[in-house]
Amino acid sequence: MSSSAQIGVTGLAVMGRNLARNFARNGYTVAVHNRTAARTHALVEEFGHEGSFVAAETAKEFVAALERPRRLVVMVKAGEPTDAVIEEFAPLLEPGDMIIDGGNAHFADTRRRERALREQGIHFVGMGVSGGEEGALNGPSIMPGGPKESYDSLGPMLEKISAKAKDGSPCVTHVGPDGAGHFVKMVHNGIEYADMQLIGEAYQLLRDVAGYSPAQIAEIFRTWNTGRLDSYLIEITAEVLSHVDAATGKPFVDVVVDQAEQKGTGRWTVQIALDLGVPVSGIAEAVFARSLSGHAALREASRGLAGPKPTPMSEAEASAFADRVEQALYASKIVSYTQGFHEIAAGSQEYGWDIDLGAVSAIWRGGCIIRAAFLDRIRAAYDARADLPSLLSDETFAREIAEVQDDWREVLIAATRQGVPTPGFAAALAYYDALRAERLPAALTQGQRDFFGAHTYRRVDRDGSFHTLWGGDRSETTA
Amino acid sequence: MSSSAQIGVTGLAVMGRNLARNFARNGYTVAVHNRTAARTHALVEEFGHEGSFVAAETAKEFVAALERPRRLVVMVKAGEPTDAVIEEFAPLLEPGDMIIDGGNAHFADTRRRERALREQGIHFVGMGVSGGEEGALNGPSIMPGGPKESYDSLGPMLEKISAKAKDGSPCVTHVGPDGAGHFVKMVHNGIEYADMQLIGEAYQLLRDVAGYSPAQIAEIFRTWNTGRLDSYLIEITAEVLSHVDAATGKPFVDVVVDQAEQKGTGRWTVQIALDLGVPVSGIAEAVFARSLSGHAALREASRGLAGPKPTPMSEAEASAFADRVEQALYASKIVSYTQGFHEIAAGSQEYGWDIDLGAVSAIWRGGCIIRAAFLDRIRAAYDARADLPSLLSDETFAREIAEVQDDWREVLIAATRQGVPTPGFAAALAYYDALRAERLPAALTQGQRDFFGAHTYRRVDRDGSFHTLWGGDRSETTA
Repeated sequence: MSSSAQIGVTGLAVMGRNLARNFARNGYTVAVHNRTAARTHALVEEFGHEGSFVAAETAKEFVAALERPRRLVVMVKAGEPTDAVIEEFAPLLEPGDMIIDGGNAHFADTRRRERALREQGIHFVGMGVSGGEEGALNGPSIMPGGPKESYDSLGPMLEKISAKAKDGSPCVTHVGPDGAGHFVKMVHNGIEYADMQLIGEAYQLLRDVAGYSPAQIAEIFRTWNTGRLDSYLIEITAEVLSHVDAATGKPFVDVVVDQAEQKGTGRWTVQIALDLGVPVSGIAEAVFARSLSGHAALREASRGLAGPKPTPMSEAEASAFADRVEQALYASKIVSYTQGFHEIAAGSQEYGWDIDLGAVSAIWRGGCIIRAAFLDRIRAAYDARADLPSLLSDETFAREIAEVQDDWREVLIAATRQGVPTPGFAAALAYYDALRAERLPAALTQGQRDFFGAHTYRRVDRDGSFHTLWGGDRSETTA
Repeated sequence: MSSSAQIGVTGLAVMGRNLARNFARNGYTVAVHNRTAARTHALVEEFGHEGSFVAAETAKEFVAALERPRRLVVMVKAGEPTDAVIEEFAPLLEPGDMIIDGGNAHFADTRRRERALREQGIHFVGMGVSGGEEGALNGPSIMPGGPKESYDSLGPMLEKISAKAKDGSPCVTHVGPDGAGHFVKMVHNGIEYADMQLIGEAYQLLRDVAGYSPAQIAEIFRTWNTGRLDSYLIEITAEVLSHVDAATGKPFVDVVVDQAEQKGTGRWTVQIALDLGVPVSGIAEAVFARSLSGHAALREASRGLAGPKPTPMSEAEASAFADRVEQALYASKIVSYTQGFHEIAAGSQEYGWDIDLGAVSAIWRGGCIIRAAFLDRIRAAYDARADLPSLLSDETFAREIAEVQDDWREVLIAATRQGVPTPGFAAALAYYDALRAERLPAALTQGQRDFFGAHTYRRVDRDGSFHTLWGGDRSETTA
């Protein structure tokens, strides 16, 4: 077997298989390998006509099939399987070779693996891939981290197989060293959770407060998709809501059990944000909303709790209300992205990644689940000012929120009055109002902490740490 | 040196010193030890008259001073110092001896340590202690975990030094095996964060919406403290708000920098809840509010964001509003505790701890920061029904919320309209409305997930997992 393959993919479940086909369709010779060789042969048999594959039965054959420096893409379940594959292949590789982990790894694992492999001279690239099966095949959004020099040889290949934004630019960039790529992919997923939760709340408001049917709401989302909410998630929401269940003739959404499931990345996004001290309340509410929905017994036991019933609206009122919901959704979405980008900036600072936030928003414009016209605006904001303290500091976003904030508040007031849960909208507005507040009750919190725990406080009028002798004469001491 | 001490304390910073004095004042002979012996001698010199101390200069002397089975309380900084102390002392101990960690350890560390020491026949007791310096000296709330048999000999001593509830019962119980004690202490702190945040929001509403001065608000809190909000935190809030800064003559709360600090336990409470799939949105908002307050540059950059200005209220309106805020605070507090107890129940189930939730609420009635009349009601709820699905399922709490929910909603509506941030109140109401909702938009979420990721969904009308061929003829398949 000659060393003819430019890239290899090991782990040929649906994501790995589709990524391998994507490389092959783009003219690369792709070595393919799987723990059970049957799957390898099946791939070549079924899709061999799409391009040039080299089927490898053993790890040795697989490594031998790759040109140097070797580029070895690992597409196995995140966690222990990734470590097992690395352990198997690393001894067969030479300095300058590259292991690329395309799974949903925790960025801390990626940092650990990168550090260990660096000592052997092997480049480890933690690579976030978004877009699901379909994206893997036809063009995903790709978020590779790892050593910069690895991108010199890997980047052009990724640019070829990646999604392209509407302006034609590839949805991939070198995000930053070690775990940067998987970190950004994690936050991408956290933002996706928030987007989906906000859409869910908008739907519920249109249904319960405005009184629209799922089919009518589908039409409303279709209209929204032609405006500044234009995005993949809004588009598929319309598709899901307009779908009618064949078995019952009912709206599809009404026959689905309303208990949302989740994998790990939304949860991680919140947990890491807590470690970094970044408030991501909108993302947290989205994760909590999913877990709350799944507590069936608790919900069952709570059905009798007192609450208002939504009051019917006239057609004109409903239509006006729907317009307001669009504005509230847009404002809340700006806040979610503000929180998510804050987390990326904080991670970048903590780990010395020097992530270009404008480039991140640019590569999310195609291929991934949160792809949206909106991301062009975020890129413009960071292009105009790379050190923007937050998305809300951008003049365009600040002005847009200023224009819609009355609607945003009115929607929340209606939800509050009528008893429709809107945790995401509410968290977003509270974040906005807290950020702009002249003073926060945190001063009282500090006073309480000093009272019960002598934790000290700072003063607005001079430097230093102070403690009041609360149990004594209440004089102030310098701590 | 004879083995005369019933208990030993190593680590004589303020918490350890006060706990040692507390044991001595209660008639126990206490061996005391510190890494630097000077501190040990200083303790005996200064407080030797309070009781019977045995000063030990070395680890060997310390262990030799203890009667068997030895009871050795470790009061060092949580983390590596705890492991270092265990490493130092464990080899000197014999089967049946007991190491009691009174620090704020992460319960996962406590589980690890308990497991390791169990192999040597040493009982490891992870013990949560709440009440700060003053509590350690005069009676804390104590939450010991670890082997049940260790409590047989340790319990009576802890009962003696603990705080006593108003009915005279000691604020200590055997919480459960291994990490149960530290887990419950962690959630205690998370609830404390939420309590403080809700009080902060109530203060801000009374200040900005009702237009009261800090001194007036202190009076309002004093009144509340005579009703069902009666609690330590409400009491000290009145003290802090009525305090006038001597240097400037201004209200103390106005000269304190409004950036709240935090240690780890609030954050842990949320991170662990995410792992357990328990929605603790109120606690999360409290943690986020603290971190948000500390982002000075971000807040500075956001001051110009558009928002409404609160409109002045008449005296009568302000007074009526204050009454409503009291109800909103009470309702939100019920939700915080509901979430916190849900987390304890989930942890208990996950780790097989069999925690008695009524007993937990009972031992929080004295000594600790969240001590409150309210905890009697929680105990009554769990006494009436130990397997209560949630506090909100208790008839009394459900009825109380039913009575105040209009006020709760009106307060949130005012906050929303006037631009005062109330993330805690809002998260609590959203949780309440979500729990009681007939249907949640989680059904739409599941539809979207099936659309873009083939994640499948369940149906309301029959068992199984299903997938719709969204990219095909949209027929339904069994997954």
